[in-house]
Amino acid sequence: MAPEAQELVDGTLHQNISGIGLDPTYVRAEGNSLWAAAHDGSETEIADFVCGYGSLLLGHNNPEIVAYATEVLNARTPIHSQFSRRPEANKVTEVLNRIARREFGTPDTYFGVFANTGAEAVEAAVKHAELDRGMRVLALVAQVTEHTEQARAAVASGAATVDAATLTRLGITSRGDGAGDLEALLAEVEAHNGRALSKAPVFFTLEGGFHGKLAASIQLTHNPSFRTPFTSLATNARFLPVNSAAAVRPAFEAARATVLDPVVTDGTVEIAEVAAPVFGAFFVEPIQGEGGIVPLAPEFAKEIAAVSAEFDCPVAVDEIQSGSGRTGAFFAASQLGLQGDYITLAKSIAGGVAKLSVLLVRESRYRPEFELLHSSTFAKDGFSTLIAQKTLEIMERDGGEVYRRATERGARLLDVLESVRADFPDVVKDVRGRGLLLGLELHDQSGSASPNVAGAQAGGVFGYLVSGFLLHRHAVRVLPTSSAPNTLRLQPSVDLTDAQIERLDAGLREACAALRTADEATLLGFLGARTF
Amino acid sequence: MAPEAQELVDGTLHQNISGIGLDPTYVRAEGNSLWAAAHDGSETEIADFVCGYGSLLLGHNNPEIVAYATEVLNARTPIHSQFSRRPEANKVTEVLNRIARREFGTPDTYFGVFANTGAEAVEAAVKHAELDRGMRVLALVAQVTEHTEQARAAVASGAATVDAATLTRLGITSRGDGAGDLEALLAEVEAHNGRALSKAPVFFTLEGGFHGKLAASIQLTHNPSFRTPFTSLATNARFLPVNSAAAVRPAFEAARATVLDPVVTDGTVEIAEVAAPVFGAFFVEPIQGEGGIVPLAPEFAKEIAAVSAEFDCPVAVDEIQSGSGRTGAFFAASQLGLQGDYITLAKSIAGGVAKLSVLLVRESRYRPEFELLHSSTFAKDGFSTLIAQKTLEIMERDGGEVYRRATERGARLLDVLESVRADFPDVVKDVRGRGLLLGLELHDQSGSASPNVAGAQAGGVFGYLVSGFLLHRHAVRVLPTSSAPNTLRLQPSVDLTDAQIERLDAGLREACAALRTADEATLLGFLGARTF
Repeated sequence: MAPEAQELVDGTLHQNISGIGLDPTYVRAEGNSLWAAAHDGSETEIADFVCGYGSLLLGHNNPEIVAYATEVLNARTPIHSQFSRRPEANKVTEVLNRIARREFGTPDTYFGVFANTGAEAVEAAVKHAELDRGMRVLALVAQVTEHTEQARAAVASGAATVDAATLTRLGITSRGDGAGDLEALLAEVEAHNGRALSKAPVFFTLEGGFHGKLAASIQLTHNPSFRTPFTSLATNARFLPVNSAAAVRPAFEAARATVLDPVVTDGTVEIAEVAAPVFGAFFVEPIQGEGGIVPLAPEFAKEIAAVSAEFDCPVAVDEIQSGSGRTGAFFAASQLGLQGDYITLAKSIAGGVAKLSVLLVRESRYRPEFELLHSSTFAKDGFSTLIAQKTLEIMERDGGEVYRRATERGARLLDVLESVRADFPDVVKDVRGRGLLLGLELHDQSGSASPNVAGAQAGGVFGYLVSGFLLHRHAVRVLPTSSAPNTLRLQPSVDLTDAQIERLDAGLREACAALRTADEATLLGFLGARTF
Repeated sequence: MAPEAQELVDGTLHQNISGIGLDPTYVRAEGNSLWAAAHDGSETEIADFVCGYGSLLLGHNNPEIVAYATEVLNARTPIHSQFSRRPEANKVTEVLNRIARREFGTPDTYFGVFANTGAEAVEAAVKHAELDRGMRVLALVAQVTEHTEQARAAVASGAATVDAATLTRLGITSRGDGAGDLEALLAEVEAHNGRALSKAPVFFTLEGGFHGKLAASIQLTHNPSFRTPFTSLATNARFLPVNSAAAVRPAFEAARATVLDPVVTDGTVEIAEVAAPVFGAFFVEPIQGEGGIVPLAPEFAKEIAAVSAEFDCPVAVDEIQSGSGRTGAFFAASQLGLQGDYITLAKSIAGGVAKLSVLLVRESRYRPEFELLHSSTFAKDGFSTLIAQKTLEIMERDGGEVYRRATERGARLLDVLESVRADFPDVVKDVRGRGLLLGLELHDQSGSASPNVAGAQAGGVFGYLVSGFLLHRHAVRVLPTSSAPNTLRLQPSVDLTDAQIERLDAGLREACAALRTADEATLLGFLGARTF
């Protein structure tokens, strides 16, 4: 397509992607297909394996959702009625609870916090976790203050003394004056506690993780090029290696802190060490999306859950990309046995039409005070909540036909990918994922005999080059994951057809064969022969 | 309304608001009216002066927008086609540029960054400002590094010496060894520069300001109860008093820092002091919304612009609530002569149906690198960008009929508010605002002879009590601003009718008369006689 007279939005990005053919304009969308505007005025059907980065499990413009959206709009449903009772949000949360009880086999209730995008749901989780932590800090400070007064009263009345061992342990030289020793001790306690409680909260997450790109959520997103320009803006997270269970406990041990609590026991003022609430949350995706479609190992997930519980650190399970039915269950984490204290949902939850996200907070962690602190003008709007309700209705009906379809289509697609890998192990490094959240990782091509392929690899755009080839030569739309650009993401809708899978199969095979032989004419020929 | 079986979303908030009658369920919305579900099964028409906290300048379910949205959905328009060319976002930005040129009389181009909510646009502005600042820091570090090497070479070759005065100024005792003195000097320069450049960026904003509630944007939002639980999460802003021009320069002076730059001049190594890029941005609303509908004084805006320019600090004008036509111009800041380097838009820009926000960045500040770092799955979607395009078309046609209507309806509403104030100066403290962004501030009622009124004032819910009265007794929906709860916000749509204005007039007069006489029976009678 001819560029706009002046590109005012993402012009530099467009320049970059046009060089590898990834700048068509799509003019129609239905099911698992997009139609590109061709240069001759016609439209070319494209099999869409990107599907809105996971937003389109039910397909582009799902006819039932579109009909319902039309109905909602034409019924003059209130869209904006902030600060009133909005039962739709509650109904969505009721359904989510029913699903959570079924999939996790839990009796726990989850409360819902509504937002508009995945990143906003993550920010809400970060804020809620910090509110909760702050309230635990305040409760602990109140306890220590009360114990301090009790200790003072006990020493003043002669009912208790400060023993020498305690003083020594805290590096205090006794002055032989009970009240004076106590005050010296309490001053040390206060200084210690001030240091322990004044630090920023510790958020853990994983290398390769992606949790959004707003100012705080980007600090939970590992990719250094996205994250490091903004480290001065928000709390920096600590990143742990994926699927390295042995790394979990040491990370907590290194970050833990204690608060000193003066308690009177048997006539002696003792100093108890209590865990300080320093942990914000541990954020994980059940299957990393942007990091290259990397499933969490069940034993790793189990270790995160166990150690986090031990250290009183909530686990935040980011299901923005993996959830809402994509992996054959509504919650991908349920397939891992990982029940989050926080669960974030977005993308497909509003049917590929509306913008909505939900943060679920487990009852045991929920702070109702949050409702008075956090809000958003667009959240809980009548349009997106009703669309989400309809989406959940579609997913849940007929005994979960959508989940079965995601499982079945995913298995079929996975078979094809595995078969391509089997035939081209020198080109395809790995195939990963579950349901309709699959990744195909290509071997590094730095050593390719094709200078263009080797150059694309060196420039980090090799996956984009293959995407351009598949798009123009096979009418198949794939894209690399944003933080692992040698991995092609395959996240189609349940409307994916057998013919589209076959087209992908043929395209991948031609790409692999051409990569194997460094056949530039085949690989790059599309650049000179674009029809759209 | 009967509460849900279990309230899973904002149950505590609902409990709070039901006590003052603010928990109806609205079932239909059109023009400037919402219909509440009445207990007898009927519907009660309510004149809506809240209108989506500013999202509904064109009214609830604007028929043209609804028809167009229906058309877009039924045409199977691609909603999600990330990482392709999406001309609609560009077209929206072109129109916004045309309007900016007209209203600000500027030749400057603004680039567009699309997001989904007002808060997200603010976060994007914060990130962009920080990227820009970081790049200016890197450029300055490169310059100092180059000068350092030049100074070393000049001293080594005997072409330059370090003079005693410079050493003294930096507190260094000369060792009488030229090269050694230089290294001592450079060590001091490096230490100084490290201190100056390692600090978090300085963001200025105003007391009473509101810029969103995500983890970083909440730190720009003044209200301490919203902000302080989360101060550990993100960079803390510095708050200046509103309309205090004299406070601007000292705030910058107090925050400024310098970088030392070793330059060789006439055979001497001198130390130049260069301003360090420590300023992130200065965020302001042309008319504070949540802070109580407080217009910026033009001379204050002028001082912010002048001093910010002098200190190389970009001005971020938050038009999320004031913009998109509400004050009779598209940009409320244009009525102040305040042209931002960043401008944020949301709320009404997507016609009250879709969720969309835009960050405009002035060309002189724009960093194309940002396009490769920042993105959002839902941003630039086909649905909301087309709705925004249609919204702008409606606003701009017929020579700006919507702006004229906002001016005319606003003037008529303001007349009524002024007249109520004139008749009840003991109850109404102030009337403020412009166009359809008006506020009516009630006097503090701590001394009311009505224990319930005085109690509501003490609890910070007096404005909510008056809102409940107006809703149930006069079918008029108003709400207080979130951070100034004695100020009623009046932000209706251009569909506001004369009859609705008269209803508000009658309602306010009855409320004022009852407040004057502490007539609890009138003021609180609605609580026992609710029909919806």
